[in-house]
Amino acid sequence: MTVRILDTTLRDGEQTPGVSLSVEQKLMIAEALDKMGVDIIEAGTAIASEGEFQAIRVISEAGLKAEICSFGRIKFEDIDAAADAGADSIFMVAPSSDIHISSKFPGKTRDEIVEMSVKAIEYAKERGLIVEFGGEDASRADFEFLIKLYDSAVEANADRLTFTDTVGVFTPEKAFETMQRLRERYSIPVAFHGHDDFGLATANTVFAVKGGADEIHVAVNGLGERAGNAALEEVVMALEFLYGVKTKINKQMIYPASQLIEKLSRVKVPPNKPIVGDNAFTHESGIHTSALLKNSQTYEPISPEIIGRKRLIVLGKHAGRASVEMIMKELGYKATPEQMKEILSRIKEVGDRGKRVTDADIRTIIETVLQIRKERKVELLDLSIVSGVNLMPTASIKLKINGKEVIEAGVGTGPVDAAINAIKKAIKDFADIELVGYHVDAITGGTDALVDVIVQLKKEDKVVTARGARTDIVMASIEAFIEGLNMLID
Amino acid sequence: MTVRILDTTLRDGEQTPGVSLSVEQKLMIAEALDKMGVDIIEAGTAIASEGEFQAIRVISEAGLKAEICSFGRIKFEDIDAAADAGADSIFMVAPSSDIHISSKFPGKTRDEIVEMSVKAIEYAKERGLIVEFGGEDASRADFEFLIKLYDSAVEANADRLTFTDTVGVFTPEKAFETMQRLRERYSIPVAFHGHDDFGLATANTVFAVKGGADEIHVAVNGLGERAGNAALEEVVMALEFLYGVKTKINKQMIYPASQLIEKLSRVKVPPNKPIVGDNAFTHESGIHTSALLKNSQTYEPISPEIIGRKRLIVLGKHAGRASVEMIMKELGYKATPEQMKEILSRIKEVGDRGKRVTDADIRTIIETVLQIRKERKVELLDLSIVSGVNLMPTASIKLKINGKEVIEAGVGTGPVDAAINAIKKAIKDFADIELVGYHVDAITGGTDALVDVIVQLKKEDKVVTARGARTDIVMASIEAFIEGLNMLID
Repeated sequence: MTVRILDTTLRDGEQTPGVSLSVEQKLMIAEALDKMGVDIIEAGTAIASEGEFQAIRVISEAGLKAEICSFGRIKFEDIDAAADAGADSIFMVAPSSDIHISSKFPGKTRDEIVEMSVKAIEYAKERGLIVEFGGEDASRADFEFLIKLYDSAVEANADRLTFTDTVGVFTPEKAFETMQRLRERYSIPVAFHGHDDFGLATANTVFAVKGGADEIHVAVNGLGERAGNAALEEVVMALEFLYGVKTKINKQMIYPASQLIEKLSRVKVPPNKPIVGDNAFTHESGIHTSALLKNSQTYEPISPEIIGRKRLIVLGKHAGRASVEMIMKELGYKATPEQMKEILSRIKEVGDRGKRVTDADIRTIIETVLQIRKERKVELLDLSIVSGVNLMPTASIKLKINGKEVIEAGVGTGPVDAAINAIKKAIKDFADIELVGYHVDAITGGTDALVDVIVQLKKEDKVVTARGARTDIVMASIEAFIEGLNMLID
Repeated sequence: MTVRILDTTLRDGEQTPGVSLSVEQKLMIAEALDKMGVDIIEAGTAIASEGEFQAIRVISEAGLKAEICSFGRIKFEDIDAAADAGADSIFMVAPSSDIHISSKFPGKTRDEIVEMSVKAIEYAKERGLIVEFGGEDASRADFEFLIKLYDSAVEANADRLTFTDTVGVFTPEKAFETMQRLRERYSIPVAFHGHDDFGLATANTVFAVKGGADEIHVAVNGLGERAGNAALEEVVMALEFLYGVKTKINKQMIYPASQLIEKLSRVKVPPNKPIVGDNAFTHESGIHTSALLKNSQTYEPISPEIIGRKRLIVLGKHAGRASVEMIMKELGYKATPEQMKEILSRIKEVGDRGKRVTDADIRTIIETVLQIRKERKVELLDLSIVSGVNLMPTASIKLKINGKEVIEAGVGTGPVDAAINAIKKAIKDFADIELVGYHVDAITGGTDALVDVIVQLKKEDKVVTARGARTDIVMASIEAFIEGLNMLID
């Protein structure tokens, strides 16, 4: 059995408060979804704005394998917009609960909603669209009315029916039973659209499939309004690995797609998100890690490679000897018992400060304790920065380069730019080094959050990258620059 | 029917990579959990370190209503540590799957594990502890062996039995069936401990209760290793609102506890987390907001007040007429139909460029279209910043607030933090405004690239977003903060 996937990242997901995607970004995401093997891409709501219309048009013309769908209401203008944008299909919803009918079409009766739906479906078919017809807020609707609405939709030649748990109040039992009833009654495909308000979206969607749903609506990273839609990655992995139900998803593309969508949507995937969160295949606890190295299955339900990612062993306050020894072996280092004790204690110290310990941190600690680290050619001795309103951002810097002290000053468009300009001047006589790349990861949390800076420096044909991580963006930038210099200056 | 709650935030949750809590922080969390009505607080692993031992001792002596529990292995030293720390109970686990037996007690047979378990339980009882005995990785164990292990534990006078889905591979169906079998076989209470690797932890825990579990293990915010444990807030709300099962949880304390634990654990709750995420009761979409203002139930499964929080209406690219009208009403503006059309089209245009539309953006658009040049309540007159090596980042600021000049200075972890701290001090006497969100888009290109900062400010119940865009990150941050202030200060 293979279930079809409608991905709503670009529609319901894009309605997440704070999320805005440009036409170019939407196309990038659509291409990633297509590559991942999604059956239907709901690319937006063509009527919503000029930008959404353009995005649907560009995606429709991109030659993707997936069916391209526009969301719409039971209004002719929505149908026209979808058809004009070149969508293959429309996911058209009519309010089906009394609360939705009265707040969306005030004054309209249930019968009038049926009538409007029939007309809209007929018109959409005339316009050449595949029509997926959904009862909005179906989980809070009178089931008898819902059946009447669906019956009429089928008579009007709708191609598919969708049961929508708009506010996420369904349970797995109800999802199973409802889809079973719909599956028995109708010969056209039936779909389930779930929301995660009570944390049950994944289970509800899986049970809908067990009940007979031919198609399910999901969004990557569980994006969507409020608690979001059912997460594609959770539903697909649960179906395939726990229930033996197939999808067309190329699982190796799940993690890359999740990463892309995290970046473009600017909605950070939490570390404890199933499948795609940073911690899903990260192990810290010393005891666990030690067992894990003996057998990776001990604390892993599936291998990370399946979804295109890698296992990460991080050391923290729970770090054990086994984990450090593994990294040392990789680097070809050997430590005396005293050195090992010192390494472990330094790692725990970083962890106790609540900092996550990366592999790079560990390597630095190991090399520091073993005194393997190459002598640093460039050292920061002093730095002063002033900036403000009507104050030209200015930095002065004192470096030791190959044992010689150099003092320089520079101005810039901001304090970071001024500091980097000062460094550039200071190194000018020692080497012809160019800053070819400067990247700061998105900063979220607060003004005292850790800032991660990566610079790319070039000397003749050689390009190196280096990182700086501080709560002060100026210091992080300088740190990265000097790290890079030390790799380039002989 | 009332189900008992064991909260493992301080044990399994504290094992989340990167999380480190001090003794004082653990006590604060234990007090919050107790106030919330948790039955059992698993406060740590007494044997793990001096710090964990101290935390359990301090929490045990704090006079809380909840039972205080220590985690431990089937080792006498673990039992001694738990008893010496003054815990009421021990949650003691024996490996029950072959993969866990062989990696944790290499060379031991299943029978030897049973024997060790019996001895450990007997010793723990001697030491006066309530014994909750768990089969670790029970969901991957041979069920016959598990029964044998549990039978022996019951004979050895264990007080409760726990079925542990250590790697999160269980399904709701299996959780139901397994707990039913255990419930039928044993007269002592049986508990379920679930992990969220496939996004099914909430459903599995709910189905375990349906199957007869007397107790469930959960963690606030779904903290825990990998994808975390079942989230307390999701399980409790699903049980009470969807299944009619009672718990002793005071639901109004859920959100405050979640907030405290987010702050102390430094694991950010994602916006789309059910119940406790920022977006759970936040509405952006124009159409929805309009319906929502008519009837809050339209897009809300439960009222936010139930769990101690409030509804938030935010505007964005999907902003419809109703939302814009609401903001205009607040500002005391009126627009002609043509002006309104122009305002809505300009808002959508910003969104289509992939930019997040902030409240301040909307206000600016409204005022531009209406040609209103409203005097700004807060104005930046002067700003000076110094920072560097061995130079404490320091900022001085001169603002005009409601016509009055205010001068303040602040220090911080970096120049941005120092400047924001100076502003915070300057406005303290004018309004109780909190910086609840700070986000910088990734910076790419160079040190003189445009930096896009978005801040979220809160005054009482009102939250606004504002943007600053400059090549200088400090100035962009200040600009965003002052834009936001102008939306909040009357």
